[in-house]
Amino acid sequence: MNFLEERILKDGIVNEGNVLKVDSFLNHQMDIELFGKMGEEFKRRFAGKEINKILTIEASGIGIACIAAQYFQVPVVFAKKSKSINIEGEMYVAEVESFTHKCKNQVIVSKKFLSKGDKVLIIDDFLANGCALQGLISIVQEAGASVEGIGIAIEKGFQVGGRMIRNLGFQLESLAIVDGMDEKTGSIEFREQEERREK
Amino acid sequence: MNFLEERILKDGIVNEGNVLKVDSFLNHQMDIELFGKMGEEFKRRFAGKEINKILTIEASGIGIACIAAQYFQVPVVFAKKSKSINIEGEMYVAEVESFTHKCKNQVIVSKKFLSKGDKVLIIDDFLANGCALQGLISIVQEAGASVEGIGIAIEKGFQVGGRMIRNLGFQLESLAIVDGMDEKTGSIEFREQEERREK
Repeated sequence: MNFLEERILKDGIVNEGNVLKVDSFLNHQMDIELFGKMGEEFKRRFAGKEINKILTIEASGIGIACIAAQYFQVPVVFAKKSKSINIEGEMYVAEVESFTHKCKNQVIVSKKFLSKGDKVLIIDDFLANGCALQGLISIVQEAGASVEGIGIAIEKGFQVGGRMIRNLGFQLESLAIVDGMDEKTGSIEFREQEERREK
Repeated sequence: MNFLEERILKDGIVNEGNVLKVDSFLNHQMDIELFGKMGEEFKRRFAGKEINKILTIEASGIGIACIAAQYFQVPVVFAKKSKSINIEGEMYVAEVESFTHKCKNQVIVSKKFLSKGDKVLIIDDFLANGCALQGLISIVQEAGASVEGIGIAIEKGFQVGGRMIRNLGFQLESLAIVDGMDEKTGSIEFREQEERREK
């Protein structure tokens, strides 16, 4: 069990409807020391990759991405979510459907900050159905840049996002993959990952 | 002239209507090395303060707050903006008016993450009319916590927010205070700050 899985067991709360609340350390209150360990681990998992930019999405991906960026020594761009196009200069826009909020959103990145040849690491806090992630990938590809890897804090392994993204051939690294949760007992089952990644 | 003022002169763009665009390094693409210098400078300016929590607001405050938190070794809480109350558990809610977006928003923080006795440093990227900041201050006070200081990257000194907050007795430290801009020449005038702060 790695440091993030341990922390999820300690402070995560399983709610009805397969909701895992980690707002005491990940996505409302943020444990910056923990984020440092996550950044270090992302650096290790993507050690072979040449990366010149990290892309994330507002709001809860930003903190993790910024701390991780210190290990890669690259700038971070965060995509904005909007319900309406807000064209000022030229923007990449991807339409995505939110699972949790049951509405359509646009994911927007200024064309100034993603270019042909950029080697991008995408970072986000959660992966469930992967809608936001698909929007980010489509924007990177539209820019003529390449997705060198995708780093996620917590993946809900029982939803389709992770499998779909891996099937597409991307190197997707989730620090914790939750394969099941039981709201009655509060228990959380993690997918075993390769030993080399668990040190 | 300090490192942030220099960077604003180099990469900031003055647009019509007193708009200062700093999206290439501060609030869309983020220069994490620059954020490190900002964090270090906040630590120096609030050296005498005992701080146990940083509070910021989504989205563009989060990166600066997380990097700064490494110098204070404290967790970060980010307030959420919402157009409607989203009560899950108990929340502090402040109603604020956005100057740039000309609409009312709610600033929301879970009661779990702000308590009586907390010594809070508020951090944000921009201060203009100070609406968001007033919402954050009111939430800290409602929690029975204290605002030990307020750290801002860029203050628009010709708008009312900074003066109002200082008049209320808060230690407000803005790393760059823009007293005037000229969209025709692109020139930017900074307020002189005490020499000890300019090293």
